[in-house]
Amino acid sequence: MTVHSGLLRVQTAGDGAVVDLTEGVRSIVGRSGVEAGVAAVFAVGATVGVTTIEYEPGAVADFQALLDRLAPPEGAYEHNALNHDTNAHSHLRAALVGPSETIPIVGGELGLGTWQQIVLVDFDDRPRERIVSVQVLS
Amino acid sequence: MTVHSGLLRVQTAGDGAVVDLTEGVRSIVGRSGVEAGVAAVFAVGATVGVTTIEYEPGAVADFQALLDRLAPPEGAYEHNALNHDTNAHSHLRAALVGPSETIPIVGGELGLGTWQQIVLVDFDDRPRERIVSVQVLS
Amino acid sequence: MTVHSGLLRVQTAGDGAVVDLTEGVRSIVGRSGVEAGVAAVFAVGATVGVTTIEYEPGAVADFQALLDRLAPPEGAYEHNALNHDTNAHSHLRAALVGPSETIPIVGGELGLGTWQQIVLVDFDDRPRERIVSVQVLS
Repeated sequence: MTVHSGLLRVQTAGDGAVVDLTEGVRSIVGRSGVEAGVAAVFAVGATVGVTTIEYEPGAVADFQALLDRLAPPEGAYEHNALNHDTNAHSHLRAALVGPSETIPIVGGELGLGTWQQIVLVDFDDRPRERIVSVQVLS
Repeated sequence: MTVHSGLLRVQTAGDGAVVDLTEGVRSIVGRSGVEAGVAAVFAVGATVGVTTIEYEPGAVADFQALLDRLAPPEGAYEHNALNHDTNAHSHLRAALVGPSETIPIVGGELGLGTWQQIVLVDFDDRPRERIVSVQVLS
Repeated sequence: MTVHSGLLRVQTAGDGAVVDLTEGVRSIVGRSGVEAGVAAVFAVGATVGVTTIEYEPGAVADFQALLDRLAPPEGAYEHNALNHDTNAHSHLRAALVGPSETIPIVGGELGLGTWQQIVLVDFDDRPRERIVSVQVLS
C-alpha cells in the first residue's frame, strides 16, 4: 500500500472560526492519484476540532451558538484557575467535537454528500495558524 | 495493500432514527476476506451521523432525548431563516456527533464490545434514503 | 501495505475517569517501525470514549464537569428503567464522544500538538478494565 502525506496550513480568527477544508483535502487527494481509499483528516492542537457541516453562513453561525451554549466562555473552570488561562471552554469544545474524521475516496473523489463540507473549527480565544494533517491511505 | 469498498443503503424515518449498521458492516468485512485492518464507516450527508451505542430501545430513546435537549428543533436558527428551511437542528446534531468512526478488524472480525453496535443516526426532519460508505483497509 | 495490531489494557476507576493513552499508542507505533501512516485508536465497549485533550488536572476536571452537565447521572432514563440499570448516562456520553480517533504518523512519530494527548474516558459508573485497539496502517 501507499501513504500520501499532505498538510494544510490555515490562518483563523479563533473564537469558533469555521474554515472549509474541502478544497484543500480534495487537492491533496488529487495529487496522490489514489482511486480508492480514505483521507484521514486530523487537526493538530488541543483547542481545535474537525467535523463535517453544510458550509453556509446560517449553519455555521448556529453551530457556533450551540457550542457557546454547551460550553460557555465564562464559568468557574479549573483549567483557567490552575493555569492562569482564559480558554478552558476552547479545550472542552475541542475534546467534545474531536480532532479527526476519515473520509472515503471512491473513483478518485471524496465521497461527501452534496451539501457536506469538511471543516476545521478553531475554538481557541485568539487568532491562530493551524496545521491539518491529511493522510491518504490506499 | 488492498482497499475493499462497500456501500450500505438504508431507509430511515428521519427525526433521530437510529439504524443498526453492525450486520451490514460485518458482511462487507466478511466478503473482503480481510483478517487484520480497519473498517472506515462514513455516513454521506450533512444531517446524519455515525457512532456506537448499545442498540436497545432504552439507550436509543435516551440518546434521541439527549439530542432533542442539546439542540432542540425550535429556536431562532439562522440556517432556517436564511434558507427557508426547518432542519437547522439536524445540521447541528450531525456536526456534533460527526460522520465517521473507524473500527478495528482483528482475526477477520469487527473488534467491537459485546454490547457495542455501530449505528447511523438520521437527524433530518423527514424520511431519507441514506448511503453509508465502508472502506475496508488492510 | 502492512497492519500492525496492538492492544492497550487499562484499569480505570470509572465515573468519567480520563486515562492518557499517548505513551501506549506511541510505544505500539514505535515497535511497528512505521514511518508514515496512521494509528487508528478504538475503545472497546459501549460506555467508553476516545478523544484528545490537554491532559492536565484542570482541563480533565472541566471536561468531566461538562459531561455531568450535558448528561447527568440522574434522570428518567429508559435504559435504566428497561434494563434495571444505573448507567444510562454512561451510554449517552460514550455515544456523544465516540469510540475512535485516527492519528497521523509522520517521520515515525505521532503527529499530535504539543499539548494534545490521546485519552480514553471511562463513562461507566464503576471501575472497569478497558481494552483499546490500536491499528497501525502504513
